[in-house]
Amino acid sequence: MDSSKWAELHNVFYPNSVAVIGAYSNEAVEKDRWTGWLLNLGYRGQVYPINPRAKQILGFKAFASVKEVPGPIDYAVIAVPRSAVPTALKECIEKGVKIVHIFTAGFAETGETEGISLQKEIVSIIRGSNTRVIGPNCMGAYCPAGGLGFGGKFGSGPAQEPGPISALSQSGSGMDSLFIPGILVRGLRFSKLVSLGNCVDLGLEDFLEYLAEDNETKYIFCYIEGIKDGRRFLEAVKKCTDRKPVVILKGGVTPAGARAASSHTAALTSSAQVWETFYRQARVLNVDSFEEAVDQLTALARLSEKPGRRIAIVGRGGGAGVITADRCEKAGLFVPLLTEETRRKIIEVVPPEGSGLSNPVEVGISGRGKVSEHYYDVLRLVAEDPNIDMILVRINIEVASLVVEIGDEQIQEFVDIWAKATHTLPKPLAVVFDRGEYWQAMKLAYRMREACSKAGVASFPSVESATKAISKAIQYYESK
Amino acid sequence: MDSSKWAELHNVFYPNSVAVIGAYSNEAVEKDRWTGWLLNLGYRGQVYPINPRAKQILGFKAFASVKEVPGPIDYAVIAVPRSAVPTALKECIEKGVKIVHIFTAGFAETGETEGISLQKEIVSIIRGSNTRVIGPNCMGAYCPAGGLGFGGKFGSGPAQEPGPISALSQSGSGMDSLFIPGILVRGLRFSKLVSLGNCVDLGLEDFLEYLAEDNETKYIFCYIEGIKDGRRFLEAVKKCTDRKPVVILKGGVTPAGARAASSHTAALTSSAQVWETFYRQARVLNVDSFEEAVDQLTALARLSEKPGRRIAIVGRGGGAGVITADRCEKAGLFVPLLTEETRRKIIEVVPPEGSGLSNPVEVGISGRGKVSEHYYDVLRLVAEDPNIDMILVRINIEVASLVVEIGDEQIQEFVDIWAKATHTLPKPLAVVFDRGEYWQAMKLAYRMREACSKAGVASFPSVESATKAISKAIQYYESK
Repeated sequence: MDSSKWAELHNVFYPNSVAVIGAYSNEAVEKDRWTGWLLNLGYRGQVYPINPRAKQILGFKAFASVKEVPGPIDYAVIAVPRSAVPTALKECIEKGVKIVHIFTAGFAETGETEGISLQKEIVSIIRGSNTRVIGPNCMGAYCPAGGLGFGGKFGSGPAQEPGPISALSQSGSGMDSLFIPGILVRGLRFSKLVSLGNCVDLGLEDFLEYLAEDNETKYIFCYIEGIKDGRRFLEAVKKCTDRKPVVILKGGVTPAGARAASSHTAALTSSAQVWETFYRQARVLNVDSFEEAVDQLTALARLSEKPGRRIAIVGRGGGAGVITADRCEKAGLFVPLLTEETRRKIIEVVPPEGSGLSNPVEVGISGRGKVSEHYYDVLRLVAEDPNIDMILVRINIEVASLVVEIGDEQIQEFVDIWAKATHTLPKPLAVVFDRGEYWQAMKLAYRMREACSKAGVASFPSVESATKAISKAIQYYESK
Repeated sequence: MDSSKWAELHNVFYPNSVAVIGAYSNEAVEKDRWTGWLLNLGYRGQVYPINPRAKQILGFKAFASVKEVPGPIDYAVIAVPRSAVPTALKECIEKGVKIVHIFTAGFAETGETEGISLQKEIVSIIRGSNTRVIGPNCMGAYCPAGGLGFGGKFGSGPAQEPGPISALSQSGSGMDSLFIPGILVRGLRFSKLVSLGNCVDLGLEDFLEYLAEDNETKYIFCYIEGIKDGRRFLEAVKKCTDRKPVVILKGGVTPAGARAASSHTAALTSSAQVWETFYRQARVLNVDSFEEAVDQLTALARLSEKPGRRIAIVGRGGGAGVITADRCEKAGLFVPLLTEETRRKIIEVVPPEGSGLSNPVEVGISGRGKVSEHYYDVLRLVAEDPNIDMILVRINIEVASLVVEIGDEQIQEFVDIWAKATHTLPKPLAVVFDRGEYWQAMKLAYRMREACSKAGVASFPSVESATKAISKAIQYYESK
């Protein structure tokens, strides 16, 4: 990507001035819309609310039109009824706005004649101009370091601190309600998010090229419904995967999904086979849902030590241990025997509980609800075993909540040990929870996972999600 | 199965008298052990606590040995230290006890010389006798209609009413903590459970033959680590699947899982391929975890109308709808277009919300948090569409909890509509929840699912689990 184009897209995330076209004069409403979100995120550039019937909105002088704004505008949000979008866009171009984000929906995605023709009008308005457009029908860009973003009740609101993950999405609601909360709950944060919508101008390809060269971005996620330029897209993804992992969720890979996608973002889709080939060629980590994307990024971001495939399972419960061992090997991980020496040392520090010490290692939350004083020592011995590359701690959450009745202070005791193991032992560690069914179990799992996130401990909501995500992360690093 | 053998096994579930060998004289303890559980489950036969140092336990006259019990004993639980098991067992045989359940662990599953030789001793003691043995190293039988069972803090405690599901398991803790809670939370109940342990005498094959002919059992689940007689097992399963669905979770299908299983219940396992062939031949619904078993039985028990594969997705959120459509088709379901007529009728009752009415149908929990008054009408119109066999209602739980802020009374409003649809419409309906991440979302999902269970509405914790389970249930019925 040449540096002038990179600088152009840099304005999307670090604009010096932002206009909000269609800011509400009712400040109680606008507080939870574009102008308010800039305030929430601590945006430090110029803010220009555009509303012909207001003098001032949330402390910023309001203007009747972008044309009346005295200084230059790097980024403008258009949030007016769809019929007013063409005029607003023309004015932005006249003003020389660098980036326009059209939030308004009701264009080609409706499938109606009026929406389709309005979208065509937008395309013809921007043709030949120097203004670049995001959308329509999307939430636009979010970059906490730039102070820019969408917010509200969801994820982006409380996440003012930046992190290593960047995401591009052709579904606003999917990203907002399924993806962002999952990442935040795991204690991870975002560098940049772009909700892309109908992509009349800037698309996935542009932002992938940008993110490939963006040092703030360590991991990339894309939710894709359709792409415009297959070859350029493939090249852009490859540029990224040479430097950092790319997780892709492709919506519309089946006939019904494709039909739903075309009515959602007016996207043209390709067959599942084409995508499979592409994933292999480009070393993409493909996932089947937003939830799986969250798990995959957790594995990448939390277990970045490039763990090997030889895993030790630590946790109590015979049948559950058998199923976990099966799950690991089905996912392409190995569950080798611990060495004789390790087993001998473990028996020295803890008396055998349950039936197995060879792997699975049946040590963990004990029947008396206490954190065994030697629990950390066992984790250390396992981590020091030459047969083992990483540790999977399995928590039977129903037993922990109902039999052992773990309370808040005990949650912290356990998490402190896992955190100590995570931060001091030579091998990575992940904590996985069996699915809770009873209310107490779900509550305990939530609290334990919350404490894990705060302590920087990798945790997963199920054995299946953990093993799948860990195995794919290893595969990516192995292919480098 | 000949009738005398059937009658013999019937004693396991409907014994006229039960001896508890090793009952605690401390009633506070025994209240939450075998004698107390008989009381909890309303057992109406004779109860004989066996304890040489007690006169009476929990209101029942205690005896020093089974040999001193005046009447006959149908079922005896042996819950004494392992070294005392051989003597207790010999006395049971002398007394002519019909069924002995050895709860005590510490036999071949330990892999130690002492445990292995004690198990051999047990085998030689029972050889030639008329006493049949369950275990050792297991929880034995549970049958609420017979008033017999294990209890405690887990599932079986609160489930005194019988239901259509019977389960056989070679893992006590797996069934107790992973399987039973899931079934109970879904509002389903059990006819019979057997925790089998090391199977020195009675095994899977015996109970499968019994359950095949048991009219109280409509659905069967087995957790298997190893089988003794492959041919007899296959025949027994086939006898069952000719009459009712059998869900099997096989532990130890990978090398590591098999090794873990051998140290857990001393089971001999076979390769994954042998099992795959067996599943096909015997029309078994195989699953990969206890959680998946719960979902599979929910699909079978709640959607027993033998729905076809053409599914309508009803719920808001564009991207989530695309992914759900993909998930359905990947699982072997079809997401056809609604007829023109249905779409026309839907538009008459509700103004279009979101972008799609063709399928996915974007109608549901609205932005204003109200149950649309026409919500039921839309479900009815969809159910009446000739292209559609069943309805999948998808709930974006983060949106429902955080944007719409649904309260308790609204939960009931929604569930009432789903219940009305379930019980009045010509097609089955299932409600699926996206995985909740924030605390509010998890809480709302739990409450909604709890209300669904009470109202007899099928619900699933994820789109993936629902589509997989539904598709396999249909496959079983199609193969009949």
